[in-house]
This record gives sequence, C-alpha cells and structure tokens, in this order.
Amino acid sequence: MFVTFEGIEGSGKSSVLTAVQAHLEAQGREVVRTREPGGSRIGQELRKLLLGMESTDLTGESELFLYLADRAQHVATVIRPALEAGRTVLSDRYADSTVAYQGYGRGLDPKQLHAFNDVAVAGLWPELTILLDLPAEVGLRRAVTRNMREHKCDTEGRFEAESLSFHETVREGYLTLAALHRKRYRIVDAAQPLENVIADVLAIIDERLAATDEQA
Amino acid sequence: MFVTFEGIEGSGKSSVLTAVQAHLEAQGREVVRTREPGGSRIGQELRKLLLGMESTDLTGESELFLYLADRAQHVATVIRPALEAGRTVLSDRYADSTVAYQGYGRGLDPKQLHAFNDVAVAGLWPELTILLDLPAEVGLRRAVTRNMREHKCDTEGRFEAESLSFHETVREGYLTLAALHRKRYRIVDAAQPLENVIADVLAIIDERLAATDEQA
Repeated sequence: MFVTFEGIEGSGKSSVLTAVQAHLEAQGREVVRTREPGGSRIGQELRKLLLGMESTDLTGESELFLYLADRAQHVATVIRPALEAGRTVLSDRYADSTVAYQGYGRGLDPKQLHAFNDVAVAGLWPELTILLDLPAEVGLRRAVTRNMREHKCDTEGRFEAESLSFHETVREGYLTLAALHRKRYRIVDAAQPLENVIADVLAIIDERLAATDEQA
Repeated sequence: MFVTFEGIEGSGKSSVLTAVQAHLEAQGREVVRTREPGGSRIGQELRKLLLGMESTDLTGESELFLYLADRAQHVATVIRPALEAGRTVLSDRYADSTVAYQGYGRGLDPKQLHAFNDVAVAGLWPELTILLDLPAEVGLRRAVTRNMREHKCDTEGRFEAESLSFHETVREGYLTLAALHRKRYRIVDAAQPLENVIADVLAIIDERLAATDEQA
C-alpha cells in the first residue's frame, strides 16, 4: 500500500508519520517512510536547493522542474522498488504538493501541472492521501515554534517565509484537490490536539487496510 | 541577438564559441557567452548532478526535468536580462539539446519535449542556431583526447560514456531538427580542420548580423 500525507507547513505531517509507521510496524508490516523533496540520493541535493534560503533567485518554473526531477527519481529508485518488494510506503508529500504549491500557490496552470506530474510519477499514484487540514495561521505559528526549537531558523525556510495569504491559498488548493479526488483523499482536522489527529489518522489507515486485506 | 550552438560531444563548440566571441567583441559588440547546463548560479549545482559520473542512477525523466530547471533559471536570470540590456548572447547548447539527447537519444516523445521546452524558455527562442555536424565516431575520439589532455577523465563524463550508437542517434536527431526549423538553423561541417569550421561560422554570423543591422 502506498499512502501519501499532504498539508501546509505546521500541519503535523512529521509527527503523524512517526505514529503511523510505529502502528504499522507493530502489526508486523514492513514500512518505508520517505518524503519529498529529498527521498532519493539525488533528491537530497535537490532538497537543499529547493528549501534553502539561499535560493531566493529560483524562478517559479525552475522550482517546478526541480520538484518534478526529485519526484521522478524518488518514484523510480525508492517508491516503486519498495512497493514491488511488498512494503508499505508512507510519503511525507507527493505529486499533490506540486499542484497545491506551484499551481494554486504560485499561479501555474493546474492542468499543465497534472500533465507534468503524470510524466514524473509514471503511473504510480497513491491508494490513499491523507490531508492534514488546518488554518494557515495556526500551521505557520506551529512551524515557526518548531524551527526555533530545532535551531534551524535559517535553513529550509524558503516556504515558511512566504506570506500568510500564500499559505491560505495553498490550503484552499488542497481542499479543492480533495474534492476532485474523493476516492483517494481523506481529510483530517489537524487543528485538534496531536493525539486526536493521530487517532483519526490511524482509524482511517486501519479501515483502509482492512478493506485491502479483504480484497486480497 | 541570441545565437545558440549545438552538436554532439567533440564537435568543437567550445573553440568555435571562443572565436565568435573574440570576433564580435572586436566589432565593439557586448557579448555574453554562456552554456547549458550551468549558465546560472543554481545551474552550476545542477551541472555537477547532470554530467558527473556519480549520477549513474539518474533516471531519464529526472534528467529531463533537471535540464528544464537549469534552462528556466538560465533564461530568467541570465539570457533575458542580457538581451534586454542590448548584449549579444552566445549559448553553448540550449533547448534543442533536450530534444536531441533526451528525445532522439533516450527515446522520450519529442512532441512532449517541445511542450516542456516551451514552459522552460517562456517564449525565448534563438534567432540563429549553428549546428556543428560531424560523424559521432570523429566527435567522440576528439572528446576523449580533450578529456585526457585536461585530466578530467572522471568528471563530466556521463554522456561521453554513452555508446557510439547513442551519439549517432543524437546526431541524426540534430539533423532532423535542422530540417524542421530551416529558418533558424545553419549546419556547418565540423569534421573539417578547426580553422575552416571557424571561418564558416564567422561568415554565417556576419551575414546574419548584416541582415539584422539592415532591418534595424
């Protein structure tokens, strides 16, 4: 099974992924936890370029193509081999991030982005996408607190430095995507206390696994 | 004026560009000489990823998107500003390289590549493209000799390491592109001695400049 987690900065994807991984491993499943950008060896180089504050001169189109390069490499060298080996893959962000951030956020044409994503993912779409949804204001406040705590104020901050209205537009983009792809998407209220968010996500995962196991 | 130089490895693009730059500067023109990949600040990082021998795990799609990222950044931060400032821009490779190498060479759909290139170049196509044409066998022998001489056997060798038939397919791809875009393309026999190649190229450049100056 291939599950992706989407949401704006500070939506709690990282903590939720840790809980989901532990939950699935306790059931005896082999889990590969990965992320975009940076899931592959070459992707780690791209992650620095994409998220680092020194890349302020990066154009919207160049940013888009770097995300697509990262994704194509991630699919071919990490995700597809893991799925073929029977593992469960959990990815912190995937193709929908491009549509939400570069499309709805930056104003590139979402239809064109779908066509580009199709080349990058080469047919590999997740069975389940969990959208951790919360107001941009709450998410950004959390992201800033986390960065301060982890002393990484200056690195990987290019998106946190965007305006509140940018992040609100991205959030709305995610909600639009969830409405367009109802079969694949589940929305979780990420403004709740973390333990409630995790409980909601685990319930969705278990329900989906039960359905998948029944089919198999 | 924006002029691009295309051709397989060992076609002499570098030496020809040096001669053209000197020729135009002697006429009092301001010249910006640039290249792909690596014409922009971020592009230099991408050049290492794209040409280095350590990137053997790079997939065809990922390679494509990295070239497009390099190009979008190159156009926006180097080529367009130079042209707007009235300079002549000479680029060692440009959008046609993607169609020749990733399309004809690697088998990706040339039509799709044209669509991708359109996004990357954002309307900026060269007025003149000079194809330095020669048999792949001759080009590769030259490229190997040059790499040995410059002691860079291990770096930037990912394309030289491709098979002879790959380079022959790329050469044929270039000839197809030249046939499809006759107004923009001029083909020069690059198997001649270098001084003859340079003389042919300078004659084409001067003829084109005279026509452009007449129009202006």
